[in-house]
Amino acid sequence: MDSIRIDALQYANWSPAVFAQWREARLAAVHATVAYHLNFRATVDDIVAWNWRFRDHSDLIAPARSGEDIDRAVAAGRTAVILGLQNPLPIEDDLGLVQVLHDLGVRVAQLTYNNQSLLGCGWAEAEDSGVTRMGREVIREMNRLGMLIDLSHAGERTALEAIALSTRPVAVTHATPAAWRAGGRQVSARVMQALAESGGMLGLSLYPLHLRDGSETTLAAFCEMAAQAAEVMQVARLGIGSDLCQDRPDAAVQWMREGRWIRPDPSAPRPRFPSQPAWFQDSRGFDTLQSGLRDAGFSAQETAMILGENWHRFLHAALRPAA
Amino acid sequence: MDSIRIDALQYANWSPAVFAQWREARLAAVHATVAYHLNFRATVDDIVAWNWRFRDHSDLIAPARSGEDIDRAVAAGRTAVILGLQNPLPIEDDLGLVQVLHDLGVRVAQLTYNNQSLLGCGWAEAEDSGVTRMGREVIREMNRLGMLIDLSHAGERTALEAIALSTRPVAVTHATPAAWRAGGRQVSARVMQALAESGGMLGLSLYPLHLRDGSETTLAAFCEMAAQAAEVMQVARLGIGSDLCQDRPDAAVQWMREGRWIRPDPSAPRPRFPSQPAWFQDSRGFDTLQSGLRDAGFSAQETAMILGENWHRFLHAALRPAA
Repeated sequence: MDSIRIDALQYANWSPAVFAQWREARLAAVHATVAYHLNFRATVDDIVAWNWRFRDHSDLIAPARSGEDIDRAVAAGRTAVILGLQNPLPIEDDLGLVQVLHDLGVRVAQLTYNNQSLLGCGWAEAEDSGVTRMGREVIREMNRLGMLIDLSHAGERTALEAIALSTRPVAVTHATPAAWRAGGRQVSARVMQALAESGGMLGLSLYPLHLRDGSETTLAAFCEMAAQAAEVMQVARLGIGSDLCQDRPDAAVQWMREGRWIRPDPSAPRPRFPSQPAWFQDSRGFDTLQSGLRDAGFSAQETAMILGENWHRFLHAALRPAA
Repeated sequence: MDSIRIDALQYANWSPAVFAQWREARLAAVHATVAYHLNFRATVDDIVAWNWRFRDHSDLIAPARSGEDIDRAVAAGRTAVILGLQNPLPIEDDLGLVQVLHDLGVRVAQLTYNNQSLLGCGWAEAEDSGVTRMGREVIREMNRLGMLIDLSHAGERTALEAIALSTRPVAVTHATPAAWRAGGRQVSARVMQALAESGGMLGLSLYPLHLRDGSETTLAAFCEMAAQAAEVMQVARLGIGSDLCQDRPDAAVQWMREGRWIRPDPSAPRPRFPSQPAWFQDSRGFDTLQSGLRDAGFSAQETAMILGENWHRFLHAALRPAA
């Protein structure tokens, strides 16, 4: 059997063309974002849209609520889709909505998205006061249900506290090490070490603003970074979370950053999506990554682990309800 | 093993005291109403309250999404709770919310509640124009998912059309025959026959306004009515749907009738809940019903069928997703 490939974060303008690329790239599973700045009710609309997609494109994709669902999708030649929240706003201020969202198929949630949330602090705030009172309750509930805690956009203190508070391993689904590119929301060595020690995972991002030389970053530089990350965390704790935002208009990047929480500055230039590196335009870049990782010194087995085997093993455990 | 007892409709002020009565009455399952005049978002609040109840009172009750769940609850000495909508308002005007509500555990829904709905016509309107365009879509979706169509509050034409349109047997979970008590929403012989011919079920109500002599109706009169209904429909198509509204304040009956769709008449006397017959004050009346049905000429086997075996067999099939 081919090795399992998994992308731990995408936010494409979902379409059969994108799903066909997943199949071409032999992706067993993709973690797909359903909500940025949406309350619960609006998130349900996004989930309904996914339910129709699962019916309309059942030749290409299948919903995944468990590791077993991923395996069934693979056996059927489909890509499993794991729904996740980048922003915890859909939980509103109601702990009961965690189980409701779980019942609707959501299996991953960030505690924060850049800004302070009801649960914790995002990386972009001036001061991070850590996991909140409600955040502790939500972590416990996510642990109970088998919903993966994602800390990609968390502040360092919130991330470290969440790793310590969670009784189950957590993940940074899409980021790169701060040692490689400083500033922004790159992940510190401390967080990487705490993640690794707790059995967590880091998904390496291919979003240009997370890459050392932006859109000009070479495949070799990316794969060298992976080798350095493996020295900090071990190969078994690394995966890919591409952060691909294919086919979205530039307005989407403004929405992702600004939502409705700030008045857009009409005199400022509108943000635009950066260009993907030439060697990772879409999911089919997994083929290129495979040779790049081999060239960087990873064995065939290690390369397969990074491209999906690690996520596969991790998700099987993470999505299981607590005993 | 004891025979299976099932109550196909209750709307109590849910409490551990009520659940303890269910256990005392040896109820294997209860169909519990979660929504009258509520939109989707407010219904989620009701479902969240049930999710907490299931955790807080797991010694007495368990959620049921399938016939197998009922069997598991019985084996564990708990009463299975099947959530249902009396009013289809939570579906709003979005077909996708049928699957969303199903994912949240809703397994029964009425197409109408007294008034015209987006799906069909209730019994209280002057003219019943039958199942609507959206109603046909919702019937198809409920058939696909394995969500039981309940016609207790439907107009006759809507009921007959829904029975014909549904590819799976449907139910009137809580009503009595119009031949026994005229007026109101009692169910006509035509609907009873159509139900029976299509493999559907009628749950006999013990709500005083459905009983021939109201609160004064005798156990013998109720059980004679059951015998007459069995002549029209056969014993295998009959069950109990008590319509118990225990421990609710009188304001609840006004809410059930008037919701927000009419301006309450401040000069009219406020409606009050009628008193339950002395022999059916709560779920423990199932014991009394058992002797009453025997006295009315039903065999021990037939009595067990009416008190729950029929619903048990029916629900096992009805709650299964379409192949």
